[in-house]
Amino acid sequence: MSRITSVRFLVVSLTMLVVAGCTSSPPVSTAVTPAASASTGPLSPPGYRQEFGTMWTFDAPPLAYWQKTYGFAPDQKWLDHVRLASVRLPNCSASFVSANGLILTNHHCARGCTDAVSPKDSNYIETGFAAGNQADEKKCPGLYVDQLISIEPVTDRVRAAITGSTAAEQTSQRTAIVGRIQSECAQSTGLTCQVVSLYNGGMYSLYRYKRYSDLRLVMVPEEQIASFGGDPDNFTYPRYDLDMALLRAYDNNAPFHPTDYLRWSANGAGDGEAVFVIGNPGSTGRLNTVAQMEFLRDIGYPATLAGYNRALAVIRQTEAQDTGAARRYQNQFFGLQNSFKAVTGYRAGLLDSSRMAKKRAFEADFRARINADPALRARYGSSWDEVAAAQHELATFNPQLRYYGFGPSTLLTLAGQTVRVATEAAKPDAARLAAYRGAMLDAMKAGVERDRPIDVPYEKFTIAAQLRAAQQELPPTDPFIRVALAGRTPEAAAEALVSGTRIGDAAFRRSLVEGGAAAVAASNDPMIVLARAIDPLNRTVTARSDSLNAIIATNTEKIGQALFSIYGTSLPPDATFTLRISDGVVKGYPMNGTVAPYKTTFYGLYERANAFDFKDPFNLPQRWVTRKDRLNLATPFDFVTTNDIIGGNSGSPAINRNAELVGLIFDGNIENIPNRFLFTADTPRTIAVHSAGIIEAIRKMYDGSRIADELQGR
Amino acid sequence: MSRITSVRFLVVSLTMLVVAGCTSSPPVSTAVTPAASASTGPLSPPGYRQEFGTMWTFDAPPLAYWQKTYGFAPDQKWLDHVRLASVRLPNCSASFVSANGLILTNHHCARGCTDAVSPKDSNYIETGFAAGNQADEKKCPGLYVDQLISIEPVTDRVRAAITGSTAAEQTSQRTAIVGRIQSECAQSTGLTCQVVSLYNGGMYSLYRYKRYSDLRLVMVPEEQIASFGGDPDNFTYPRYDLDMALLRAYDNNAPFHPTDYLRWSANGAGDGEAVFVIGNPGSTGRLNTVAQMEFLRDIGYPATLAGYNRALAVIRQTEAQDTGAARRYQNQFFGLQNSFKAVTGYRAGLLDSSRMAKKRAFEADFRARINADPALRARYGSSWDEVAAAQHELATFNPQLRYYGFGPSTLLTLAGQTVRVATEAAKPDAARLAAYRGAMLDAMKAGVERDRPIDVPYEKFTIAAQLRAAQQELPPTDPFIRVALAGRTPEAAAEALVSGTRIGDAAFRRSLVEGGAAAVAASNDPMIVLARAIDPLNRTVTARSDSLNAIIATNTEKIGQALFSIYGTSLPPDATFTLRISDGVVKGYPMNGTVAPYKTTFYGLYERANAFDFKDPFNLPQRWVTRKDRLNLATPFDFVTTNDIIGGNSGSPAINRNAELVGLIFDGNIENIPNRFLFTADTPRTIAVHSAGIIEAIRKMYDGSRIADELQGR
Repeated sequence: MSRITSVRFLVVSLTMLVVAGCTSSPPVSTAVTPAASASTGPLSPPGYRQEFGTMWTFDAPPLAYWQKTYGFAPDQKWLDHVRLASVRLPNCSASFVSANGLILTNHHCARGCTDAVSPKDSNYIETGFAAGNQADEKKCPGLYVDQLISIEPVTDRVRAAITGSTAAEQTSQRTAIVGRIQSECAQSTGLTCQVVSLYNGGMYSLYRYKRYSDLRLVMVPEEQIASFGGDPDNFTYPRYDLDMALLRAYDNNAPFHPTDYLRWSANGAGDGEAVFVIGNPGSTGRLNTVAQMEFLRDIGYPATLAGYNRALAVIRQTEAQDTGAARRYQNQFFGLQNSFKAVTGYRAGLLDSSRMAKKRAFEADFRARINADPALRARYGSSWDEVAAAQHELATFNPQLRYYGFGPSTLLTLAGQTVRVATEAAKPDAARLAAYRGAMLDAMKAGVERDRPIDVPYEKFTIAAQLRAAQQELPPTDPFIRVALAGRTPEAAAEALVSGTRIGDAAFRRSLVEGGAAAVAASNDPMIVLARAIDPLNRTVTARSDSLNAIIATNTEKIGQALFSIYGTSLPPDATFTLRISDGVVKGYPMNGTVAPYKTTFYGLYERANAFDFKDPFNLPQRWVTRKDRLNLATPFDFVTTNDIIGGNSGSPAINRNAELVGLIFDGNIENIPNRFLFTADTPRTIAVHSAGIIEAIRKMYDGSRIADELQGR
Repeated sequence: MSRITSVRFLVVSLTMLVVAGCTSSPPVSTAVTPAASASTGPLSPPGYRQEFGTMWTFDAPPLAYWQKTYGFAPDQKWLDHVRLASVRLPNCSASFVSANGLILTNHHCARGCTDAVSPKDSNYIETGFAAGNQADEKKCPGLYVDQLISIEPVTDRVRAAITGSTAAEQTSQRTAIVGRIQSECAQSTGLTCQVVSLYNGGMYSLYRYKRYSDLRLVMVPEEQIASFGGDPDNFTYPRYDLDMALLRAYDNNAPFHPTDYLRWSANGAGDGEAVFVIGNPGSTGRLNTVAQMEFLRDIGYPATLAGYNRALAVIRQTEAQDTGAARRYQNQFFGLQNSFKAVTGYRAGLLDSSRMAKKRAFEADFRARINADPALRARYGSSWDEVAAAQHELATFNPQLRYYGFGPSTLLTLAGQTVRVATEAAKPDAARLAAYRGAMLDAMKAGVERDRPIDVPYEKFTIAAQLRAAQQELPPTDPFIRVALAGRTPEAAAEALVSGTRIGDAAFRRSLVEGGAAAVAASNDPMIVLARAIDPLNRTVTARSDSLNAIIATNTEKIGQALFSIYGTSLPPDATFTLRISDGVVKGYPMNGTVAPYKTTFYGLYERANAFDFKDPFNLPQRWVTRKDRLNLATPFDFVTTNDIIGGNSGSPAINRNAELVGLIFDGNIENIPNRFLFTADTPRTIAVHSAGIIEAIRKMYDGSRIADELQGR
């Protein structure tokens, strides 16, 4: 049984939040004040508009541009309807698609639930599942969706509260005012409230959500058909995936009846037809400065990719020693491959000189506009240089920042947390490291004391790999190298550390935590000794990095304000994992010397399986082999559009101008990946499962006429 | 009815002979002396062997390398058998595939015959054809195949005859000795004899062929399935083409029974299996110097591509005025698109800095080896610089060389030929331009006097386009510009020339030819006036170009000798449209973020047709729609290998180690095109129709059990 947690968009999105984390405002949450203010005024796009993409917020839809481009501008009722029909999963997007609360999302977005509700002796991820009747629908533990009720501008209130002169003061004031707005909102409305920072803080909006916490699994196909083609076909097209799952929202133990849900399109979208994608793109870097992009291209991404490669090699080493490991690490392995492919694509975009030239041209133009106005110049003129200086300084100690830490070893991480829990508990709350303050201290303690399995061979391989890499990047005199290796080879050091430690034993960890700082200081366990030595190194380097990142955050916020003051909402803001509506058309594209079609059909699924002699990952679930002749093979299966999506958009509905569901977004093509930094629509495409393919599969493969009838409103 | 003449490999090959013609020794033909000398000695490949590819001659097969790579080295009997089973069409390759003389080649290689034998009211190119019995097989007018009987080394004899000190003397002596050897051979054996210049003249071999001149059409599918996917899919993979045709050789009006023919493989080739391709690659540029490649990259190919674009635009303009033009120019249009795609790919290879770096490294290494030996240095050391100097000088008047001429207008070409026939006829034979000597003068006269249709709108558009381009590339003071435009716009000049001339009238041309030089000199027909002015400009610029090309030819021959003296036959020679055997394996490859399969099946054909809603060029012949259910859709259709092929290889058999036919070569993928200059096997692939797909199609679609049984030896 595979136990893969959600992949593709999700992993990448989270990965990227970490990778690019130095420059992103962390999402904040929970407080008051309703009313959406939809700006429907005419749009005057500047010369670089297209490169910022089409992830529009619902309070600033570009109606004039849509009217001009598609001959269609929806009214407020249409906008409200499709907004309310859309929901957000913790890591994905989704939508209400029936009068009885069916929710459509991707297979990979419902993996956690699918796994959790599986019977003991098998797993629905592998076998698929279709509830024969309502009673058979399985409650997903802990899963919820959020529905966006309203958006309210709070920029002035946030900005008024930020009065400090240093970056640190400003950061702390921003956090405080955001927290206050959110908690006021939550108290007065009972809703889930989030202050969203748009344009890097150029604009703040309060988003209020209604949460639905009783979700039940109705239908999922086998993973083998949901992500047919596995890692090779991931992020590519033509594609033959049924990456879907159906949940149902319940209210008081009965199906919930949403006022707004998407009707199912009779035929899906045709070639060239305008479609809208509604969902929650996680993060983009289109407002990044050139200096930030160069840092990622030359320092950040190469290090990230090297780390993925190490982790993949360690899993392969472990698998060679342990036949059970392949299954255990399958999830992680696919996630790493997925992220490797994504980050390789991001970097390819940054290595593309024509894209970078466009970005430079935009930045030069933008800075010239700022510098042409003395007031703007005084306020924003130096921001780009300050960002660049901070990025350059970050580059000087990037290896230290990456190696002065406890991961990726579980044992060393446990040792580090044990050391820190003991140390931090002894301090007054305000003096503690941020992750050990308030209630988080007890949570951390409980985590350290919880029993957990240790994979000894994996631990040795991963520590050795990390030390080998550190040895190559850090000088021999480096304090981390001296204490971690102590003259030994990386392999010998890893062997001694893993064999000599008792930190894998939960009772031992509990004894240290209970013994407090004194017990930790007195321990001669080799992992504790190493963790004690790394602790101060990590604090120093992290503090230095934090202060530089605060400078970057302050200045990118200024740049965001400058951008907003010049272009307003005529440019969509960077992705923030909040609801957006993107416009596009169904369209093939030039590919590899020929043309990729706008859609695929079930014929192509059987072509690809047969062309690879059904070898993994091109094998098919048994029912797709035995029931093949039931299918109309010419039924559309997947299709592509020019909509603007990224990780977090997984599960988004694609709708036509009648607000009917025509497709289910699940991926982008390989050409789409570099769109992270600069949007183009020449060859990048968004990939969706076709509405007709979903119905055909549910009816013919999963005996799901009950479900298909409900989707089609029969 | 379409009247497209042979395309794809063919057009490209011929095009490239013209484009790269300045540096290629022209193929020579017809003379004596038998005996093949197969070198089977061990191979010591130099560091750059792979980059020269695997187009091996039958007298120097790399047996030790094959043994090492595939665990298989064929014996002389195997080699003789597969050589004698292979035949050459005037522009393609083919093979005997039955005991009763069936010959397998590509659909596009048999187009001329297919067209010629079609009934008046329809065309087999469109409808397909399968002879129900022997009597129904249709004789192809003028078509023949040549079977390679023997190869004999004649290098010493050729070289001994070349004693002159100037490039012009040497060229003339080489032509004379080659002619003598060929005619001696023809007289003494009655065979077709050709002296082949290998390694740019580093080695000369006498090839003797038996010619079969009674060929009959047995079966061709519809062009729509033979080249399904048209221009977009041309040169790409995955592919779904049945690009096949079957002819039969007759002898004394009865089927010919070849002693050697290829048995049909029962299952075709599996993934990873070694295969050999036997055929006649037309021309490669792997021995080109860096200077030659830079010339093509920066001067030659850009001009060629611009010319193709002009020609395509002129056809589109004509079609916009004349609804019948689309059909008339279909052939030419597809040929131009095909060549445009090929030359774009060639140039992409030259623009690829990593390929060029490899080429530079090889040349530097090679020159260092030459310079390290005083004798070699004295003989060959300056050759690269002399080639470079000549290429640089050619670059200085390349626009003049392209525009001081009569084409592409038919009217101006006729005017130019009329002027020249009159002028040249008045001279002694030896003083005439080469194309007007001996019997060629009468042929040229007859050509000029023959009636032919003139497309007036096309003529105006093509002259205007040519003059516009000339105006952009030549200075206003240029003599051609002054006389051709005479102050008019290109459009006005074209209008005046085409409207004012009588040269489209055959009687007028005859009167001028009969009137001789005096009549031509006295004519005030505007086309004749212009042709008279262009004539001396063309003579001057062509003579200058010819003398520089003679320098290049002499020095590339020296470089070829130097290469051969150092590496011998361990490097295969450049392609010469003579028989080669290339080794490779059946293998998929990384493509566009994922992997391309080693084979396709009939499922994929229906996928692609449905994915494009059966829109041209993804429509299917009617029988492929109505008879679909007869097919086993999982039957392999096309497949790819790492064999080394280029234009001229069309129709080559792919065989396994048992000398059984497993496939029919018809194209390369887009990644294969840059292999023209430097061979790699990472992503470039050769595309073949699968033996099983051919049988399935013949039996199920064309009611051809008579033919399929014969192929399968039943």
